[in-house]
Amino acid sequence: MNCSSASLLSSSFLPAPPPNTNTSSSFKLPQSKPNRRHVTAKMSLNKPPDPTSLLTSVTNLLWGPSLPPGLLISTVRSAWNTTWRLMMSQLAPSDPSLAYTRPPSRFRATQIPRQNRTSLHLYVGLPCPWAHRALIVRSLKGLESAVPVSIASPGNDGSWEFKTTRDPDPDTLDPTRDKANGYKTLKQVYKSRPGGYDGRSTVPMLWDSNNKEVVCNESYDIIELFNSGLNEMAHNPGLDLSPPSLKPKIEEWNSIIYPNVNNGVYRCGFAQSQEAYDVAVNDLFNTLDKLEDHLSRFRYLCGDELTLADVCLFTTLIRFDLAYNVLFKCTRRKLVEYPNLHAYMRDIYQIPKVAETCNFQLIMEGYYKTLFPLNPGSIQPIIPVGSEHQELLRPHNRDSLCLKGARESASTLSVS
Amino acid sequence: MNCSSASLLSSSFLPAPPPNTNTSSSFKLPQSKPNRRHVTAKMSLNKPPDPTSLLTSVTNLLWGPSLPPGLLISTVRSAWNTTWRLMMSQLAPSDPSLAYTRPPSRFRATQIPRQNRTSLHLYVGLPCPWAHRALIVRSLKGLESAVPVSIASPGNDGSWEFKTTRDPDPDTLDPTRDKANGYKTLKQVYKSRPGGYDGRSTVPMLWDSNNKEVVCNESYDIIELFNSGLNEMAHNPGLDLSPPSLKPKIEEWNSIIYPNVNNGVYRCGFAQSQEAYDVAVNDLFNTLDKLEDHLSRFRYLCGDELTLADVCLFTTLIRFDLAYNVLFKCTRRKLVEYPNLHAYMRDIYQIPKVAETCNFQLIMEGYYKTLFPLNPGSIQPIIPVGSEHQELLRPHNRDSLCLKGARESASTLSVS
Repeated sequence: MNCSSASLLSSSFLPAPPPNTNTSSSFKLPQSKPNRRHVTAKMSLNKPPDPTSLLTSVTNLLWGPSLPPGLLISTVRSAWNTTWRLMMSQLAPSDPSLAYTRPPSRFRATQIPRQNRTSLHLYVGLPCPWAHRALIVRSLKGLESAVPVSIASPGNDGSWEFKTTRDPDPDTLDPTRDKANGYKTLKQVYKSRPGGYDGRSTVPMLWDSNNKEVVCNESYDIIELFNSGLNEMAHNPGLDLSPPSLKPKIEEWNSIIYPNVNNGVYRCGFAQSQEAYDVAVNDLFNTLDKLEDHLSRFRYLCGDELTLADVCLFTTLIRFDLAYNVLFKCTRRKLVEYPNLHAYMRDIYQIPKVAETCNFQLIMEGYYKTLFPLNPGSIQPIIPVGSEHQELLRPHNRDSLCLKGARESASTLSVS
Repeated sequence: MNCSSASLLSSSFLPAPPPNTNTSSSFKLPQSKPNRRHVTAKMSLNKPPDPTSLLTSVTNLLWGPSLPPGLLISTVRSAWNTTWRLMMSQLAPSDPSLAYTRPPSRFRATQIPRQNRTSLHLYVGLPCPWAHRALIVRSLKGLESAVPVSIASPGNDGSWEFKTTRDPDPDTLDPTRDKANGYKTLKQVYKSRPGGYDGRSTVPMLWDSNNKEVVCNESYDIIELFNSGLNEMAHNPGLDLSPPSLKPKIEEWNSIIYPNVNNGVYRCGFAQSQEAYDVAVNDLFNTLDKLEDHLSRFRYLCGDELTLADVCLFTTLIRFDLAYNVLFKCTRRKLVEYPNLHAYMRDIYQIPKVAETCNFQLIMEGYYKTLFPLNPGSIQPIIPVGSEHQELLRPHNRDSLCLKGARESASTLSVS
């Protein structure tokens, strides 16, 4: 029992075969001879390349065979880090400080013609927090039959594709085929619109089945439309998640929560420099601290009523301990360490029809497998205790906050 | 606000330059032309290689330029994963199921001649939990002047080296030069022994300054020696952390805690297959659950007295939320979610002279920078709230357990 730092690496990282022959054979790959550089130049894509000769080849290519042995590990580390940066720069565009900058949505639609509202179809993916917003508002408004949904899955090449799952979860939504168009990938759906499309094929995406056209792929536009634009077809038209009197408050919360929390977790995980990460993680946890305080006094963000701002916060919170805490290094606290935020999350989770939109296994799989630059071994961690379905059904005891919040508001008024 | 899965990757991951030109320029590297393959074949080691041409070159080398574009991401993912496996196999030897198998220590010493006991020198590194055991027992026994210490740091090539830190922490131990031999690296110290040595240069390592020989590099042997073999020189000879009456209990705890917790966290982090990880993480958390229960009734593992078994458990617990929870994917719970284990950890942390052996910044740096295959971006996460010094000084309220434990033991006896 002792510590080798990375000393197994230090003896002879390259190009000698691994010190333990079991290790090498456990890859179930043919033994390679060092420096057989061109043998691997072409290989079947179905078989993983022989790792020893792969890294030997890469090293020879980059630095030639004459590198002094003592420098090999720092060299490999540098190549590994550089490859990571390249992958991240493609996965997540950044500004000059290497901070993540989310690209804008391409299809915006605040108004759609009345005649097109009866042929809408929603495309989502279950891991995605932005798509999750649309699923929740669709459910709360009772738009399930008015706006059918197709649920995509992350494919091997990282883009959204349609495949049904082998063992569906009876309690939650599961991936489906493309029910509107019968395509294999979301890219094909986007491409089939009049004029075609070659950009980012993102979810959520609202589709007009009559005109075969993308209506909108901006999540907030979609939930506003679902909230107030389709009431004639909604089973629950009376629910208004964005009443005029609360709109300024909702917008204020969104302007705080979007950059620091919803997108804030991505700014942590996709930061490509320590400095960018440090800024993002402080913004995130300062905001969570403020929310924790606010939610100790108010049941929902805007008081007694659930609003769109709550839906938008919820879809990030529900993923926090499952993915962001570990994969995105949002480590200052887990969500379960915030008693009010966790109870608030449970409160919303327990609203009828919300839990079935949360498929925890697919959320974890989506993040840990798809974002492979952040998780090179593709190993998926065990689900945290506080994030399990049963745990989220624990009493939230937040009903009493309605009265308390009202009293405090009244006393504030009388003081001012 | 929408989800692209990895769709930025999907448009044209390779070999085209990044879609966002800001991204490329933000690397502060010269713009590369695609396919200028041999320009980077040799480069200065001080400058990071141009990432675009690097990955283009690697891809061309491995699969040729004619790969169908649709397969590029899964190809890159596979190469990335394969490179990770190779690095992990060198970092962490594994059995055929790709489970981590820790190599045995090379220098064992349960007995050392009396005349050699006055010229001992201890080599440690602050990130290492095994070395930490030796530091703590040395402090508790008052062996600081009898056994001087040299504190190594992880070097750029991953092996232990000696460098003093720019801003030392006034409250904790900090890295030092090699006070016994004046070498730059621990490898040189090992190599200078009679007969030389070319194996793993690990800490803790106990050195005989007179004979210029490695005495022992097995942590448990060292703490047993410190506990009972150097009492003539110890300021606190009366303290016995392994009294004969408790030895069987200590050994029983060690046999549970070593494989499932001390080494168990490494089995999680160094697992090279999902199956190996799943086994390790269940072993770890099943054991922590049992310890949580036991420590709700007993102040220390063996009852009212601190023993070597507690020291060995402590050095893993103190690193749990700092490193293992995130980097090693020990995600089922954080340590702060175990009230008894966390209070037990605080209890030991508050024993005089223990806190100064815990340098949290260097522990995090050691894990997140040195184990770069697990953290390809080398970004170090923010310290978790429950792991900060001030938080660990919170009252532990475990004194009363001594009496309670005694009462329960008595009642057990009377029942049986």
